[in-house]
Amino acid sequence: MLAAKAFRQFSNMTSNPTQTLAKAMVFSEFGNPRDVLRTASYPLPGCSDNEVSVRYLASPINPSDINQIQGVYPSRPPFTYDVSPSKPSAVPGNEGLLEITGVGKNLEKLYTPGQWAVMASTNLGTWRTRNNLASNQLIALDKTAFPSIVEAATLTVNPCTAYCLLKKIVPMNKGDWFIQDGANSMVGIAAIQLAKHFGYNSINVIRNRPDVDQLKQKLYSMGAAVVITDEELMNRAWMKENVGKWTQGGKVKLGIDCVSGRVATEMAKYMNEGASMATYGGMSRQPLAVPVSLLIFKNLQFHGFWVTKWKSENPKEYEALVLEIQELIRDGVLRSTNTKLFDLPESADGKTFYETFLDAIDQHGKSIIQFRYD
Amino acid sequence: MLAAKAFRQFSNMTSNPTQTLAKAMVFSEFGNPRDVLRTASYPLPGCSDNEVSVRYLASPINPSDINQIQGVYPSRPPFTYDVSPSKPSAVPGNEGLLEITGVGKNLEKLYTPGQWAVMASTNLGTWRTRNNLASNQLIALDKTAFPSIVEAATLTVNPCTAYCLLKKIVPMNKGDWFIQDGANSMVGIAAIQLAKHFGYNSINVIRNRPDVDQLKQKLYSMGAAVVITDEELMNRAWMKENVGKWTQGGKVKLGIDCVSGRVATEMAKYMNEGASMATYGGMSRQPLAVPVSLLIFKNLQFHGFWVTKWKSENPKEYEALVLEIQELIRDGVLRSTNTKLFDLPESADGKTFYETFLDAIDQHGKSIIQFRYD
Repeated sequence: MLAAKAFRQFSNMTSNPTQTLAKAMVFSEFGNPRDVLRTASYPLPGCSDNEVSVRYLASPINPSDINQIQGVYPSRPPFTYDVSPSKPSAVPGNEGLLEITGVGKNLEKLYTPGQWAVMASTNLGTWRTRNNLASNQLIALDKTAFPSIVEAATLTVNPCTAYCLLKKIVPMNKGDWFIQDGANSMVGIAAIQLAKHFGYNSINVIRNRPDVDQLKQKLYSMGAAVVITDEELMNRAWMKENVGKWTQGGKVKLGIDCVSGRVATEMAKYMNEGASMATYGGMSRQPLAVPVSLLIFKNLQFHGFWVTKWKSENPKEYEALVLEIQELIRDGVLRSTNTKLFDLPESADGKTFYETFLDAIDQHGKSIIQFRYD
Repeated sequence: MLAAKAFRQFSNMTSNPTQTLAKAMVFSEFGNPRDVLRTASYPLPGCSDNEVSVRYLASPINPSDINQIQGVYPSRPPFTYDVSPSKPSAVPGNEGLLEITGVGKNLEKLYTPGQWAVMASTNLGTWRTRNNLASNQLIALDKTAFPSIVEAATLTVNPCTAYCLLKKIVPMNKGDWFIQDGANSMVGIAAIQLAKHFGYNSINVIRNRPDVDQLKQKLYSMGAAVVITDEELMNRAWMKENVGKWTQGGKVKLGIDCVSGRVATEMAKYMNEGASMATYGGMSRQPLAVPVSLLIFKNLQFHGFWVTKWKSENPKEYEALVLEIQELIRDGVLRSTNTKLFDLPESADGKTFYETFLDAIDQHGKSIIQFRYD
């Protein structure tokens, strides 16, 4: 019943043959994605003189996108009539790789058709096929830097977060150490790869699992100095015995946390005096619990990091970082893993459009919708 | 039995009549003060050319002194044979007001007999009657600044902590707000008084109690902008309704916490985006629990502050701060309250010496041993 309603709008559309028909996921109220998402198609005029026409090649589904639909994320897209004449709606999705298909007269010196670009800010709605964007809404890429669309489509959230966590929380020198949980997350893996490049050493915490040795091996092969399970982290005698052996006098100056709860508390115990922990997620759904002695006598500092806020406050620095990460991808420093692509032809009907997105949302791990154009 | 052992050393002393006999509390192992403290008296030679002879006028008993005796404090005094020939011992006490009684030849331009001074560093053992100190171990005061010995004896721990918390955690401007728990503690009261002087506004949290209105009135009279109980703090609807009314658009940039646990968590909710909380105590014996959203989306920062460490790392700044606080006392900005004086004549026998200290330790609130000399 809900699904039937969800894609009704597609079939009802009457389009003007001189305009392109764009398709999008939309929502008009906050809630469970399966309940509140629907599909919409709408006529898209040609771009104005100050815009480019774009088509999305790949739109990742990030946890924060889901939280935004649920209404539990502090940053919210505006609801407008732009994509849906029936009621104010927003297009979800904040990250995406697009291809420029047309260039407005005033932007011809800046862009050429066929160029790739990513979003210059959030809340622009990337779960759609086509759009027209102003120049300050996109950052053009050099597509020759990328081994596949995956690296380009996913560079603005996770690698940017990892880069900022390593570079903007505490001054780190070559040979310094950090400890991170969720080391197998997209941010965790980017941090391992970047740290190898910067000359930092990492203690990486992963959840115990049946194939843990295989996962450890994978992270070691990417440049992790040490990989341990959360159960090993909880073993204080074993940790005390080993941290000194691993670090050989090196200092654990930084903690990177996306789990919070007990794992973060335990990690803090192995950070050096004066070190900082930055929390960018709370997968355990537990608060960060900090023993007072670590604050007072060990002078640890606890911060959060929110890449969305950082980007909005530092747009120039963000653009420079995107281009720096592009070069790190070209040089083979950063490689994406753990992603699953979901093919979606532009010609798909409303039901297929909806179900493909919902399947991708339900997927464990990072999903990317890959749009296909004939 | 223990008490008998504790002051045995006094009666066994054979002193050289040409030397002064000093008396001290001492301990040789960590534990419960009643179990491990004992009294000692020992011959004190005249001071060397590079020392001054001093007698203590007033020695406060701070919670950290007790923790040091218990062995649960990270800073520990050295155990030596200086005051006890029977076994390596330390004299407890880190804060104290002393009077200079004799000046070594090389220090005659710096000090005069009768001058007051406080300790320039910790672990010098202030729970004693007399000592010889080097010039870098004391900071001379101008005794005309002080309405009583209490203000002079207690200036180096609590007012210094309050000053640093207000001035060294985040930049505060006139009209800015802070929220603090334990507002009736010595640090809390000093923070209220200093904030009034600096033009900062404070929301002060105290534990509910039978005479709470009287205590609120007392803190208001000192300059508190708002005083609430911990129970009022826990009432989120009431707080949300009132914080805006109190602050009238002013920003709560700082949290000052000596309780930790739930009280600190609740206080953090009413701090502005980007604000910092500094924890200097953990009276609830609970860890600081920080909701992840406050770290990530509200960009709150959590720090600790340990005045002992700050002093040892900034000795020049500490000396300047002592003299600044002396002037704030002279100007009536800072007044001590909540202290109880315990008289102790130098001529007291070992049992009286021991029992006076133990009574003062068992006292609720700030106790000060006031030594009397004939």
